[in-house]
Amino acid sequence: MSKIIAINAGSSSLKFQLFEMPSENVITKGLVERIGLNDAVFTISVNGEKVTEITDIPEHGVAVKILLSKLIDLGIIQSFDEITGIGHRVVHGGEKFNDSVLITEEVLGQLEQLSELAPLHNPANIVGIKAFKEILPNVPAVAVFDTAFHQTMPEKSFLYSLPYEYYEDYGVRKYGFHGTSHKYVSERAAELLGRPVEQLRLISCHLGNGASIAAIEGGKSIDTSMGFTPLAGVAMGTRSGNIDPALIPYIMEKTGKTADEVLDVLNKRSGILGVSGFSSDLRDIESSAQEGNERAELALEVFASRIHKYIGSYAARMYGVDAIIFTAGIGENSDVIRARVLQGLEFMGVYWDPALNKVRGKEAFINYPHSPVKVMVIPTNEEVMIARDVVKIAL
Amino acid sequence: MSKIIAINAGSSSLKFQLFEMPSENVITKGLVERIGLNDAVFTISVNGEKVTEITDIPEHGVAVKILLSKLIDLGIIQSFDEITGIGHRVVHGGEKFNDSVLITEEVLGQLEQLSELAPLHNPANIVGIKAFKEILPNVPAVAVFDTAFHQTMPEKSFLYSLPYEYYEDYGVRKYGFHGTSHKYVSERAAELLGRPVEQLRLISCHLGNGASIAAIEGGKSIDTSMGFTPLAGVAMGTRSGNIDPALIPYIMEKTGKTADEVLDVLNKRSGILGVSGFSSDLRDIESSAQEGNERAELALEVFASRIHKYIGSYAARMYGVDAIIFTAGIGENSDVIRARVLQGLEFMGVYWDPALNKVRGKEAFINYPHSPVKVMVIPTNEEVMIARDVVKIAL
Repeated sequence: MSKIIAINAGSSSLKFQLFEMPSENVITKGLVERIGLNDAVFTISVNGEKVTEITDIPEHGVAVKILLSKLIDLGIIQSFDEITGIGHRVVHGGEKFNDSVLITEEVLGQLEQLSELAPLHNPANIVGIKAFKEILPNVPAVAVFDTAFHQTMPEKSFLYSLPYEYYEDYGVRKYGFHGTSHKYVSERAAELLGRPVEQLRLISCHLGNGASIAAIEGGKSIDTSMGFTPLAGVAMGTRSGNIDPALIPYIMEKTGKTADEVLDVLNKRSGILGVSGFSSDLRDIESSAQEGNERAELALEVFASRIHKYIGSYAARMYGVDAIIFTAGIGENSDVIRARVLQGLEFMGVYWDPALNKVRGKEAFINYPHSPVKVMVIPTNEEVMIARDVVKIAL
Repeated sequence: MSKIIAINAGSSSLKFQLFEMPSENVITKGLVERIGLNDAVFTISVNGEKVTEITDIPEHGVAVKILLSKLIDLGIIQSFDEITGIGHRVVHGGEKFNDSVLITEEVLGQLEQLSELAPLHNPANIVGIKAFKEILPNVPAVAVFDTAFHQTMPEKSFLYSLPYEYYEDYGVRKYGFHGTSHKYVSERAAELLGRPVEQLRLISCHLGNGASIAAIEGGKSIDTSMGFTPLAGVAMGTRSGNIDPALIPYIMEKTGKTADEVLDVLNKRSGILGVSGFSSDLRDIESSAQEGNERAELALEVFASRIHKYIGSYAARMYGVDAIIFTAGIGENSDVIRARVLQGLEFMGVYWDPALNKVRGKEAFINYPHSPVKVMVIPTNEEVMIARDVVKIAL
């Protein structure tokens, strides 16, 4: 029996989950927010209750110290020695990492090199890794990559039709993200279907504030909607997804913005927020649409229709599909979006049950029993995948 | 009986076709190239034979004069009065024009305003219009737009998930192109199927040096792959099609290029040329791939797989499809591309016959008789659509 901590470090936050393995019981979980500010917030769940503290947390190292001493203070662990492994979520593994890896000095250097491909994410992940390394230098740490699962994509899927030397010289290709989530739900789908994942063609729809679709054939990702960055693919909370690339110079000229400023608009002011004009939160959009707000209705349609089209596209990609999976915040909870995404797919064998589709946040089949294509809601669990990889690689 | 001339004017070229209407017989056709240079080339077909002249043609007005006097010299017409109407292809009609229109002074002004949306194309089209207007001021002229057919797209199809004010203030939306071609083949498909176009769901694949796919429901375009400009959608001869928009700032930083220079790479050095590294001409690529060139094989795969995925996507968009149409240079002639595009679509009712697929450049069904979804090759004819619209609108 061992205790594994799964870490997801952002630039000013640190999420954690402590697992008992191999049972996969979650002993505790929590979150440090607003690291670097005087009123940082530390939240931890103890026996299902949330404990919150507001305190001064200047940097990630301090956050890690507070977290670990809190685990002792609350009687969750007796000594640091009980923690036998640490798993860190790392956004970008480039082409270097097609699986999780034990973090050595060499690996850390490679992660730093990859920061160029994910300047918003990898540096924060690395800060988290270093903070734990300093305080628990002898506990093995494993990096688990958002991109790794998609490294099985063939070249015809990952290559952009740009000058080939951009791929060779600058790493310009589709990497894909949310890989840990797509992998988790695809494996779970195979269990629930009672069939080996090797025999299945799955379309996984990870629909959260970020959203991506993956075509998973025989347990391997062969295509996905996100691209070189997490901006590409379907419309998201604040991200545009795919647009005509010629719009960037046009918008620069019209607004006087630089390319980076336009990119910022595409990342932070577009998607559901851009279309609706008032919110990136799909729950707000759904209730406004129900009250008759036309722009909210349009935002729902734009969001759902892009996903709907990806499902057709990925069914074609795999010459058919055995099951469609919905996961993450919206995918698990919004029957409105699922209904719009699934509408009219009978031509490809998808027969779904509006009554079953009402399910929220738990595993369920929502297809009619006679449907050739199964449709499933599966809450994602990236943290348990991280814990499993720590056990697999480091223990 | 009347004679109508259909004109397609580029920045340094002018294509023409003279029709006898309503029979739609092509009396003659030809091309002026290298306008503005000393060694401009004038080519005209007379009774199936090509006559070529190299001469000094400083501007479009001179080209039009040479063309018209040639028609008389060659005895094709006796007097200019025989030409009863002129149809001009115009690339961009914006949201202003959802059908062809008689060109008045007011319309000409509107076309000039629209040049902002198509700076590479509309100005050349306008030069052509003015040149004919000067020489044949009393002959009615009609503008036929590449974008008009797609104006039936609903907002959820044409709107990008960008800040909504970009649509309102700057006209940022999907316009779509090749509309005249998509319209022609969809109407012709209905005739060949012996069913009213109003009852059909068609996917039209216009695959030439530029390429676009359209979802046509009940005779109306409801979605298409090109976007704000003809750069978007599938990979093309030299155009990238859709890429992660975040790549533009990244490539700018890596190469030191400006946004406009990167756009130029995306338009002129990408697509099949970019992937293969040696040619934008699919015939070169096919023969090299057959000889074992891996990059040529990859270019074929990238080109075909994007189209294949659009077919799945647009079948989903229309809740199924009745017929798939291939047109334009590659669509009409390349059985290799058609075979790759159609591969594995049995799950959605597409059963095609490899023997029938060998057809080149003529109307044919290439599906098995029992196939629920029909697959057709239909040579496009944008010129006859232009002539028909002149008759409809101006005569």
